[in-house]
Amino acid sequence: MTNDLSSLRNQYEELKALGLSLDIQRGQPADENFALSHGMLTCVGPADIVSPSGVGLCNYPGGLAGIAEARELFAEVLDIEADETLVGNNSSLKLLSDTLMWALLRGLREGEAPWNSEPRKMIVTVPGYDRHFTLLESLGFEMPTVPMTTEGPDLDAVEALALDPSVYGIVFVPTYSNPTGDTISAANVARLAAMPTANPAFTILADDAYRIHHLSDDRHEPSNLLRACEAAGNPDRVVLLGSTSKVTFAGAGLGFLGTSRANLARLTQLMGSEYIGPNKLEQYRHVKFLRAYPNGLEGLMADHAKLLRPKFEAVGQVLNRELGGTGLARWTDPKGGYFVSLDTTRPVAKRVVALAAEAGVTLTPAGASYPHRLDPGDSNLRIAPTRPPIQEVETGMAALALCVKLASAEYDAEHG
Amino acid sequence: MTNDLSSLRNQYEELKALGLSLDIQRGQPADENFALSHGMLTCVGPADIVSPSGVGLCNYPGGLAGIAEARELFAEVLDIEADETLVGNNSSLKLLSDTLMWALLRGLREGEAPWNSEPRKMIVTVPGYDRHFTLLESLGFEMPTVPMTTEGPDLDAVEALALDPSVYGIVFVPTYSNPTGDTISAANVARLAAMPTANPAFTILADDAYRIHHLSDDRHEPSNLLRACEAAGNPDRVVLLGSTSKVTFAGAGLGFLGTSRANLARLTQLMGSEYIGPNKLEQYRHVKFLRAYPNGLEGLMADHAKLLRPKFEAVGQVLNRELGGTGLARWTDPKGGYFVSLDTTRPVAKRVVALAAEAGVTLTPAGASYPHRLDPGDSNLRIAPTRPPIQEVETGMAALALCVKLASAEYDAEHG
Repeated sequence: MTNDLSSLRNQYEELKALGLSLDIQRGQPADENFALSHGMLTCVGPADIVSPSGVGLCNYPGGLAGIAEARELFAEVLDIEADETLVGNNSSLKLLSDTLMWALLRGLREGEAPWNSEPRKMIVTVPGYDRHFTLLESLGFEMPTVPMTTEGPDLDAVEALALDPSVYGIVFVPTYSNPTGDTISAANVARLAAMPTANPAFTILADDAYRIHHLSDDRHEPSNLLRACEAAGNPDRVVLLGSTSKVTFAGAGLGFLGTSRANLARLTQLMGSEYIGPNKLEQYRHVKFLRAYPNGLEGLMADHAKLLRPKFEAVGQVLNRELGGTGLARWTDPKGGYFVSLDTTRPVAKRVVALAAEAGVTLTPAGASYPHRLDPGDSNLRIAPTRPPIQEVETGMAALALCVKLASAEYDAEHG
Repeated sequence: MTNDLSSLRNQYEELKALGLSLDIQRGQPADENFALSHGMLTCVGPADIVSPSGVGLCNYPGGLAGIAEARELFAEVLDIEADETLVGNNSSLKLLSDTLMWALLRGLREGEAPWNSEPRKMIVTVPGYDRHFTLLESLGFEMPTVPMTTEGPDLDAVEALALDPSVYGIVFVPTYSNPTGDTISAANVARLAAMPTANPAFTILADDAYRIHHLSDDRHEPSNLLRACEAAGNPDRVVLLGSTSKVTFAGAGLGFLGTSRANLARLTQLMGSEYIGPNKLEQYRHVKFLRAYPNGLEGLMADHAKLLRPKFEAVGQVLNRELGGTGLARWTDPKGGYFVSLDTTRPVAKRVVALAAEAGVTLTPAGASYPHRLDPGDSNLRIAPTRPPIQEVETGMAALALCVKLASAEYDAEHG
């Protein structure tokens, strides 16, 4: 290997000369993933405008927490009961936002004070999901961080932070975490559910966006957080979130939420002042389409996995070939979800992103997986291989690997 | 006329013996109104998943303020520009709520303090829309009331209240007001736009839910509030709201919002932390269906009016026949919208609703058109004739008229 700086610079000039234009920045399904759900577009016609449970889908009433059939379906996804489930319009992030905004203005639970203390804090895991950070910042939360581990959030760190009464909870991804692909262990679920918290309003906001997004039969499924909280005597501690954004349509999916019946009664009372309910026809489209899909939701997710798995395998192959044994980086081999997380050994993530951009390869901005985009080690890169064709994934990964090598060599040259 | 109490009691017993079960409580379209839009259910298929402006409707990006085609369409409805328009998911009330919640947490405009003073107040018109009152109460606003007049909100009263720095604005329905059917005059639009306000955040929240819901060619259309505010040097003072709940589907419509470009930039920045955008496919269904409807939106609304006008005429005919010249009540003859407002001369609205309920006729609860359901005169009744078949409207109105007569006679007997 001729990994000396001038050789790498020559290789990089050759890369630039290719005039690439690749985007492996965001976790988006590919058009062939969306095509699996094209049947949903027209599956509800004039003969379907009264739901099986007797609700007129064109008119207002009957769906403040979603139509019964949708609550049943997505309760199955969250492994809870229909009357613990609320189905909204698109985007689980919007449901998270609505939940937090009501908590800030009125308190999440009956009789609870508004979450508007100064300061107010919400624990987040790092590396983590940039949109969580943006939302929490927008709502005025400070974000103490805890490391994401292969067993989920570092519970020693969480338990220590939970002793601060200005900490209102934790936001994290329990299954196939964004970006590391980690899933919380049963032991950590039990600890989260049972741990003492200084603030009685402490809430586990579990964004289970990738809960059913397995890449193979080697599945990671977390313990049931809602049941664990019940068992620990803290039945109202958790709010689960999920969506069909990466199941049916990212631009026209459904968000859903699971929590205790007491919390749900409170939330629907608050949300009931905002509207009569979400789009019922879109909910029934989902129900009718997903129930009729061969082998149901399970079958659809298996078809998604068939399309996505080769792209993740390509990432692993190229990174192994180009960076394996170099000691320049380590990366994840996720069993599900939408991302590969790569950490450079040197603090060169920003430089790698800049080099890649100059060569026509758009990566997620360095630091995006940390609050305020401040990655203290300047090392984490999020790779999103799901949308581009596999050839572009391979080309992009090779370019990324070269940029890691060049940035690392530059760093070593400068720092001896 | 044998309007003595015992005769009226006999008539009322005969009414009860009919065993009616009628609901003229809420402003809902009839199934034949919804049927006009059945074509929208399936009009967007796999060939339509890229919008004319080039946005992939299945994927995430491109629609934080709605897709371009929907913003153009609903800008026409609000008589403003597309880049002054945001199109969301269903329900304009939800958009009003989102707007107010961000205002409470962050301030509506760049650099504006959060609207969280204690007390905080929002002017409302009475009689008015019960869901406005419920939302404002839920968000902690006190609701000083001003009378709704045939020229819109009583501007002398509004101007006086606006001198209170804890007043953050006014919420009202500018066109075919709920429940009185009144439309704000050009003079009052100009006064609202130009009046001094103690609170620089003072905002006109104009819920223009019935803007295009004319019942005949005798149309009432308000002056353009956004342009009036611009002309008065207060370009950021107004937020317009509307929806297709009573245009296409109440359970699956679109809410939209119009405001200055500066306000819209701020709102989309805030909302951009909540989601990547609303359901783009539902937006394109609306655009494709409404653009293709014979004579467009205008044609659809004319078809709605054909179905609704006879019901409003029936209300007027029965009330005139039964109560005309009695001096027991006065009622509106709206040119659009969804309601007839009736005021009893005696303070008997609650008693009328109770009598009607006992006879199987469900009316909007007495007091609903006032904050906290407190109608100081106990006189206002909201009549919603749009959903029941015309025969039921006639039967219900006759029952209502009898209950007004009986309650009034009871009152006179008790109070001499």
